[in-house]
Amino acid sequence: MALIVQKFGGSSVADAEGIKRVARRIAQTKNDGHDVVVVVSAMGDTTDELLDLANEVTSTQPAREMDILLTAGERISMALLAMAVNDLGCEARAYTGQQAGLKTDAKYGKASIVDIVPQRIKETLNEGAIAIVAGFQGVNVENNDVTTLGRGGSDTTAVAFAAALGADVCEIYTDVDGVFSADPRIVSKARQLKVMTYEETLELAAHGAKVLHLRAVEFARRFNVPLHVRSSFSDKEGTWIVDESSSKNRAMEAPIVAGVAHDRSQGKISVVGVPDIPGVAAHIFSVVADADGNIDMIVQNSSLSNPGISNISFTVPVEQMDDVVANLEKAQEELGFNNIQTQSPIGIISIVGEGMRSHTGVSAKLFNALAENSINVEMISTSEIRISVVVDPQKLDDAARALHTAFELDADGEAVVYGGTGR
Amino acid sequence: MALIVQKFGGSSVADAEGIKRVARRIAQTKNDGHDVVVVVSAMGDTTDELLDLANEVTSTQPAREMDILLTAGERISMALLAMAVNDLGCEARAYTGQQAGLKTDAKYGKASIVDIVPQRIKETLNEGAIAIVAGFQGVNVENNDVTTLGRGGSDTTAVAFAAALGADVCEIYTDVDGVFSADPRIVSKARQLKVMTYEETLELAAHGAKVLHLRAVEFARRFNVPLHVRSSFSDKEGTWIVDESSSKNRAMEAPIVAGVAHDRSQGKISVVGVPDIPGVAAHIFSVVADADGNIDMIVQNSSLSNPGISNISFTVPVEQMDDVVANLEKAQEELGFNNIQTQSPIGIISIVGEGMRSHTGVSAKLFNALAENSINVEMISTSEIRISVVVDPQKLDDAARALHTAFELDADGEAVVYGGTGR
Repeated sequence: MALIVQKFGGSSVADAEGIKRVARRIAQTKNDGHDVVVVVSAMGDTTDELLDLANEVTSTQPAREMDILLTAGERISMALLAMAVNDLGCEARAYTGQQAGLKTDAKYGKASIVDIVPQRIKETLNEGAIAIVAGFQGVNVENNDVTTLGRGGSDTTAVAFAAALGADVCEIYTDVDGVFSADPRIVSKARQLKVMTYEETLELAAHGAKVLHLRAVEFARRFNVPLHVRSSFSDKEGTWIVDESSSKNRAMEAPIVAGVAHDRSQGKISVVGVPDIPGVAAHIFSVVADADGNIDMIVQNSSLSNPGISNISFTVPVEQMDDVVANLEKAQEELGFNNIQTQSPIGIISIVGEGMRSHTGVSAKLFNALAENSINVEMISTSEIRISVVVDPQKLDDAARALHTAFELDADGEAVVYGGTGR
Repeated sequence: MALIVQKFGGSSVADAEGIKRVARRIAQTKNDGHDVVVVVSAMGDTTDELLDLANEVTSTQPAREMDILLTAGERISMALLAMAVNDLGCEARAYTGQQAGLKTDAKYGKASIVDIVPQRIKETLNEGAIAIVAGFQGVNVENNDVTTLGRGGSDTTAVAFAAALGADVCEIYTDVDGVFSADPRIVSKARQLKVMTYEETLELAAHGAKVLHLRAVEFARRFNVPLHVRSSFSDKEGTWIVDESSSKNRAMEAPIVAGVAHDRSQGKISVVGVPDIPGVAAHIFSVVADADGNIDMIVQNSSLSNPGISNISFTVPVEQMDDVVANLEKAQEELGFNNIQTQSPIGIISIVGEGMRSHTGVSAKLFNALAENSINVEMISTSEIRISVVVDPQKLDDAARALHTAFELDADGEAVVYGGTGR
């Protein structure tokens, strides 16, 4: 007997049929002899519909009241799901984030979890019942107001309860079979991964792969919660995400590279003609930080023909480009640069794998594969288990396929894709 | 400056336009210098849509989870209304029943209020803001679960907060101008009443008039909360419902009868051939009580031609007829009656007025008016301020018009009807 936390996203409970299908899965897990805690998101488009209503009614949208509004969505799905499970002969009780003991700070709309006190959840399990918990929401410890956790909130809720309850596994249900070695819509020979480490998952997610939200994976890593990403449409094993030692049993089959991620969400800003004197780069990046710019890669090159002058290029998310450029232009006189050039979007291709820690020649293989496909590399960044390069966005899909083949990730057959990623 | 509690029903906030209209009314009241607490129902058909969803998902519908589900409705409307009021430059804060301090017993779906601890509402008012409270819901004091108050719950919530806060008035907004001396759809010359007593309102509501829910009026009477039933579509004075002493200022214009109510929701059961021995009537009514039958009128008549045998007739709500008859038939041998006759529905016409306490000749006038219109009276029941009679349901509308004219209630013009009663 295990304690299993199961998380179902909005697309899994989009309508009455979906709720009943999910209920059967929950009841089956319970009937197999396990203790079950379920975290559920709002039904399908509920959240968007509530946002539309708010837009119709008001332009100010106070954050506290927006959270009250949006949490109505999980309230509906959790109550319906509990009823559907009860219908199958398994006692189920629905709990709001507050009732379940998920305590947050006061940052409405993007609250952080400060504590989980799952007293009622434990009582529910002790009495042999199933606990259905609203995802995405908690209670402001300062004043008992409801808060929402922001993007990735339901995944994070599930992992947080798995950690607090010492669950054996946190199952993340989605509409695909698991995590793939690349996006199957681009790389048709992408293979489903059996096991990944938290670090690989974080690197892939941070560089464009639609896996899990970073926040949930970081939470899982910190508390060492085994994740199992799997399909709500089948009983197949999905992808396990575990710590490095637990993943050692994959060693025999382990490729150097676990997966290839591509990213079209970044743009490049080049500050041209910067005086090459100490402190100027620091000044530029403090201006970028003032615009809340999230910098990923940086390249600085001094001009050989024009000594004393350099160019600084860096990448930021596309939606932050305008603010960052505006802030830089305001500071142009102070910073003394010549002009600003931008490119948006750029293409970034990344390979990620724990095997890169111990294997040499990985970057040589990467550059060879790209060169053989006539793909130029514009910028590079690396971590211990990742290499990312900026390429022509037109050639990004080719680059993904080339690297997937070069690192021997290609599956025998084609990947089965059920639909969107559902998260 | 007064403290005003305003209650808006689902039809007043059915869509974004409705919410904005209600928000303007609230802001105007605040800008006139008053403290304002608002109680709001779920938007339009939200509750019915949630019930439909529950019916699609499950047949068991556990009461606790149904309450979680249904309270999502007010959550949405209260958040949107608070935002809309904020948009108009008045600070407004939305509160669930729990946050507002409405504590109930554990009877999910039909909870009773056990206490109101409006700490956060008082703080909100002290800080110059408007409190928007979800109607129809509270928190189970035993375990912090959400509960709903059942039928009339939003009116009752408003009156309860008005009582707990010592409000100067509880305004009940609806889609008609106030309470009428009869249903304007039947009696075209019905007039809007300026002032009524709690007792008159209770008698009218209990006998078929669509006024306010009995429960809310009883609460208002117990705590002496002045009610003002008025239209959310106009600024006209509506109908004040107050205690008898406060209503004395209407004495000069006061008619003996305040209003005429008609009721087609009752049926008649006649138990024929009952042995005329002590205790049999008591036995019959305990059988009826076992079927949860709500008896209104009772007539027992002994047969002159057949001494020792009597017939007992009584009225119960139409929807209780089958259960009551079934229970009686099960006990037929024991009770020794001959057979059961039923009539469903019957027509009941009532006149209600405080003036009846001190005026004689009221019943004579009633019977004359009915006789002149060839309407037979089958059963009679009275209270200090009411006379009700059972008549042929086909002639109920005629009876209402005849009595309205006889007791000089007819207005000069025709009543304006905006739509349904919205409650």
